[in-house]
Amino acid sequence: MDYQEYFHNRLEGLHAEGNYRVFAELERDCGAFPAARQYTGRCERDVTIWCSNDYLGMGQHPEVLAAMHEAIDRCGAGAGGTRNISGTTHDHVLLERELADLHGKEAALLFTSGYVSNWATLGTLASQIPGCIVFSDALNHASMIEGIRHSRAEKVIWKHNDLADLEAKLAAAPANTPKLIAFESVYSMDGDIAPIDGICDLADRYGAMTYLDEVHAVGLYGPRGGGVAEREGLMHRLTVIEGTLGKAFGVVGGYIAASAALCDFVRSFASGFIFTTALPPAVAAAAAASVRHLKTSEVERTLQRQRVAQLRERLDALDIPHLPNPSHIIPVIVGDPVKCKFVSDTLLDEFGIYIQPINYPTVPKGTERLRITPSPVHTPEDIDRLAAALGTLWQRCQIARIPVAAQ
Amino acid sequence: MDYQEYFHNRLEGLHAEGNYRVFAELERDCGAFPAARQYTGRCERDVTIWCSNDYLGMGQHPEVLAAMHEAIDRCGAGAGGTRNISGTTHDHVLLERELADLHGKEAALLFTSGYVSNWATLGTLASQIPGCIVFSDALNHASMIEGIRHSRAEKVIWKHNDLADLEAKLAAAPANTPKLIAFESVYSMDGDIAPIDGICDLADRYGAMTYLDEVHAVGLYGPRGGGVAEREGLMHRLTVIEGTLGKAFGVVGGYIAASAALCDFVRSFASGFIFTTALPPAVAAAAAASVRHLKTSEVERTLQRQRVAQLRERLDALDIPHLPNPSHIIPVIVGDPVKCKFVSDTLLDEFGIYIQPINYPTVPKGTERLRITPSPVHTPEDIDRLAAALGTLWQRCQIARIPVAAQ
Ligand SMILES: Cc1ncc(COP(=O)(O)O)c(C=O)c1O
Ligand SMILES: Cc1ncc(COP(=O)(O)O)c(C=O)c1O
Repeated sequence: MDYQEYFHNRLEGLHAEGNYRVFAELERDCGAFPAARQYTGRCERDVTIWCSNDYLGMGQHPEVLAAMHEAIDRCGAGAGGTRNISGTTHDHVLLERELADLHGKEAALLFTSGYVSNWATLGTLASQIPGCIVFSDALNHASMIEGIRHSRAEKVIWKHNDLADLEAKLAAAPANTPKLIAFESVYSMDGDIAPIDGICDLADRYGAMTYLDEVHAVGLYGPRGGGVAEREGLMHRLTVIEGTLGKAFGVVGGYIAASAALCDFVRSFASGFIFTTALPPAVAAAAAASVRHLKTSEVERTLQRQRVAQLRERLDALDIPHLPNPSHIIPVIVGDPVKCKFVSDTLLDEFGIYIQPINYPTVPKGTERLRITPSPVHTPEDIDRLAAALGTLWQRCQIARIPVAAQ
Repeated sequence: MDYQEYFHNRLEGLHAEGNYRVFAELERDCGAFPAARQYTGRCERDVTIWCSNDYLGMGQHPEVLAAMHEAIDRCGAGAGGTRNISGTTHDHVLLERELADLHGKEAALLFTSGYVSNWATLGTLASQIPGCIVFSDALNHASMIEGIRHSRAEKVIWKHNDLADLEAKLAAAPANTPKLIAFESVYSMDGDIAPIDGICDLADRYGAMTYLDEVHAVGLYGPRGGGVAEREGLMHRLTVIEGTLGKAFGVVGGYIAASAALCDFVRSFASGFIFTTALPPAVAAAAAASVRHLKTSEVERTLQRQRVAQLRERLDALDIPHLPNPSHIIPVIVGDPVKCKFVSDTLLDEFGIYIQPINYPTVPKGTERLRITPSPVHTPEDIDRLAAALGTLWQRCQIARIPVAAQ
């Protein structure tokens, strides 16, 4: 077999479909984010980022940067080992305590990323608990899907955010079988939010554990940034709350918060936790500073909500369709990968506005979109410029101005 | 089902076996590593770390720290997105170029860890190439095993480092089926080294791709730190070379280096690459500084080899058995989890020497060991203190002084 030719052919397929991805090469301008420089190979140019998941600009917050600098000076760059073999530092332990407290749980466990926390925790729970059936929301993130797949446990997919369907499926399973319901709070591509309380009710009724991914909600919702479950007073009803340190908290890493026994169980049996170098202590220190700050500061969350509302109003005024949802994510559906990339490229080339086209496999084919994430560090002038650019482009490109049906 | 009780029972089982893991909580003393502080809950005390995978002390190298500080000031804490959605920074691109150059390959691709690079790359190659059979060394690392398992491709395990067995198994497979041979250069727990040239010969003969994990070799072997394959002039014969930025390079992260088409293929299809926040630019910058430094500096590697030889001599003089191997890793087999933990605890409590006991599942039951990793930042006095402590303990605990048979 000619392996090189095989790779080439598969990549050709992506090109032909319009699904080949070109990464924008950026350099964020610390202190002036969302301003950044883009390297195009030929030149550098100034751009404004409108698609970052550094939702609150915490990646440039002085307290976060100070904590990171301080920890580097205090204990160096890397952790130097897996958590078991010399890689557990004081900063890791303090961060885990901060996270347990954030979610009102006995314990928390850090992973190298949110992806790994989902993959490793779901993979471990579902494979280690004999006979466990996983009830997985149809739109769950790839990391959850891969974790469940990895466990080889029986998986039952229920219709996205549909309590009736979930209940029917729970009722159809044997009563005494261990069960785990896996879902997200804010679904990042459509920005809709799960009926957490209803799911917890069903979990109680059918004796299931609940696993909630709050990756796009931690830092952003709830009086202390504990996520949607905090806002709704539901944290104590969830078996596992999973989150990331790489989005609203502005750094990198992932975690679960749960009972001490569950965290200890995952700590002891999860390959993806055990056999990998721990995060640098400076990353842990920076993340802890961010979590701590957002436990008491409402400024960022309030300003973000204002910016989201302002941009939605401007899009409405221009008749540019965006999915209605109760979150901070503004999806503008284009519905075609080539057109979506064209709009994105033009925004960048002509207007210095960077919004990555979102295409397959991140969203289903036919729902390609621009996903806009206003933040407290976007100014009203940034919003003016974005709205003007989108208005011009929508005119020029004859993109639908009618509301799109939700898929 | 009572889930909490189940977790408790499983943890009880680990306690009963002596395999329950207690993480030492450390704080490395930047500039004075291997010196560190240990937090015991009750007090803090000074310790010397002898089991770190920061093999060359690069985690405190001034050039590495300066690069990390500079990048934080320049562009903040986190990347703010996945590689596709605003998370590719100039620092990531520069690091990938540095790594491609290190291994003499067309391209390199960064992952959040070495674990994820193995899991995602093997998982993607083996699942996406129709009919691919993976030939996996019996002692491959958990991350490779899980990646292969995840792919659901056919897997053939060959005897550790055994060319005859590999050949027999390659010959038994259909000639026209795609094949991938997955192995490591330095096996981290025994410190033995694979016959890379012989494996490449077999790969050529049977039309197989080769996948080499150089996680415990990059930075350490070869004139530019390209690993054992560089030292032996074999880099061009390997399809994929995989490495970590978290061990000899002293930071965190993982990567593959390979043809441009292969890297682009993995970039385009690997869930574990696509759906996760990129490493912080400061991590990429620090790692690039480390890689760059070790391309030209021999000081660290030379001094490390001296320290390894010195410690081996001292152990020999004391008749303390250590596995003979051609690498920088000195495994002292104790062979019982409880005894191993006792020796480790006593080293820490009485002598301020930290060597984590290595037990199941990291090594097979019955081969529990102390795994000692001398580095250029260990002084001759550190070695004296370690040898004296081990001598005292071996006397006191009646641990075998005879050479152990290799398992
Ligand atoms: C819902 C969801 N869960 C988990 C992750 C993974 O988190 P991380 O980026 O920290 O790996 C993501 C995105 O990256 C996500 O969208
Ligand atoms: C052989 C081998 N490969 C891969 C890894 C994973 O690399 P990382 O620590 O960067 O996740 C390790 C250890 O952690 C290892 O020993």
